Amino acid sequence: MALPAPAPPRRGRRPAGTDTRAQILTAAREEFAAKGYDGASVRGIARCAEVDPALVHHYFGTKEQVFIAAMSLPILPASVVPDLLAGDLDRLGERVARFFFGVWDVPEGRGPFVGLLSSAATSDQAATMLRTFVTRTLLSRFAAGLPEMPERELRVALAASQLIGAAWLRYVVLVEPLASVPVADVVRLVAPAVQHYLISDCLTAGSARDTFIT
Amino acid sequence: MALPAPAPPRRGRRPAGTDTRAQILTAAREEFAAKGYDGASVRGIARCAEVDPALVHHYFGTKEQVFIAAMSLPILPASVVPDLLAGDLDRLGERVARFFFGVWDVPEGRGPFVGLLSSAATSDQAATMLRTFVTRTLLSRFAAGLPEMPERELRVALAASQLIGAAWLRYVVLVEPLASVPVADVVRLVAPAVQHYLISDCLTAGSARDTFIT
Repeated sequence: MALPAPAPPRRGRRPAGTDTRAQILTAAREEFAAKGYDGASVRGIARCAEVDPALVHHYFGTKEQVFIAAMSLPILPASVVPDLLAGDLDRLGERVARFFFGVWDVPEGRGPFVGLLSSAATSDQAATMLRTFVTRTLLSRFAAGLPEMPERELRVALAASQLIGAAWLRYVVLVEPLASVPVADVVRLVAPAVQHYLISDCLTAGSARDTFIT
Repeated sequence: MALPAPAPPRRGRRPAGTDTRAQILTAAREEFAAKGYDGASVRGIARCAEVDPALVHHYFGTKEQVFIAAMSLPILPASVVPDLLAGDLDRLGERVARFFFGVWDVPEGRGPFVGLLSSAATSDQAATMLRTFVTRTLLSRFAAGLPEMPERELRVALAASQLIGAAWLRYVVLVEPLASVPVADVVRLVAPAVQHYLISDCLTAGSARDTFIT
C-alpha cells in the first residue's frame, strides 16, 4: 500500500505539537471505536497515529485520559470517584446526584454524554466503547469503593440507570414538569433512589434483603 | 404546483386499501414530525395524504391510534394505562415495572422506543414528537388516575425516568451485570423506586413529605 505523500510545509506560526495532538486524538477515536475501551491501548493508538507511545503519554497521560480528551468528556473519573466516595455514607446518594446533575445541567457538560448514549442505540461499536469505558473507569471503581456487601456492581448500575434516565427525560426529551423544576429539586427527588440502590440501610433490613440480594 | 402524474395501473391482485393505508402512514409520520403530537391532527394528516379525514378514522381510529401505527409502537396507551392503574395501589410500581420490562424484553417491542429516544438526542422535532405523545397519552393519563396528592405529573415523570434509564443501560448500552440478570430480577429491583415515586406511602410520611412536596 502506498504511503500518502508528505504534506507541503505550512507558512506562519502554529502552536507546537497541535498537529501531533490532533493526530493522536483522531487515532484514539478510531481505536476506541474499533476495539472498545478495554481492547484499545496506548501502544495501538500510537501505532495508528504513527508516533511513539511515549508521545501519547507525554501529551495525555493514561489510556483513560486519552479517552477523556478524544471524546471531549468534561470529567476524569479517576479523580471524581474517590471524591464522591469520601465522606458520610448516609449522604452518598445526594453527593452523587448533585455531582451528576451539576455536569448535565451545563450544555457543554452533557453534550458528549448525550452523543455517546444516543449513538449506542444505532451502533454496536459505540455501545461497546461506552460500556467498556463506563464500566472500567466509573462503575467498577465506584463499586470497589462501596462498603463490603452483596451485588455492588449491580447496585452501581441501578443507581446509574436512575441518574441517566432522569437526565434523558429532563435534558433531551424535555418532559414536563421534570424539565423545568430547579436542578436542586431534581437532586433532592432522585437522591433517595440512588441512596437506596447504593446503600441498602436506607430501607429496613428486611426489605433491603428482599430487594437486593439475588 | 403541478400534481404528480397518476400512477400507471398495476397488474395482479393486491390487498384492498394497502396503498391508501401506506399513504396515510407516511403523511402521519410527516405531520407528527413537523408539528409534534399536539399540533398534528387527523384532518391535517388526511390533507397531507390527499384523502378524506373519514378514511383516516376508518383505517386507524383516533389520532393516538394513527401515531401508534405510524411509529409501529407495540402498545396502545389508551388501553394499557387503565389496566395498570386498576388494582392494589401497594403493588402499582411492580405492575408498571413488569409491564414496561415485558415490552422492552422483546427486541420488536423495544425497537420503536429505542429509535424514538435516540433520535430525540439529534433532532428537536423528534424530541417534540416523542415528548408530546408520551405526555398526552401516557404521563398525563397516568397521573390523572393516581390518588389525589401533590405533584402527580412530576411523580409519573420520575417513575418513567427510572424505567427508561434501566432499560437503556440493560438493553442498549448492555452494562453488566444489569444486562444479564433475569428480567424478573430487574422488575423486582426497580419496582420499589417506581412505587416510591408514584405513591409516597412506601416511605414514612415524614420522609415522603420531605422528598416529594416542593
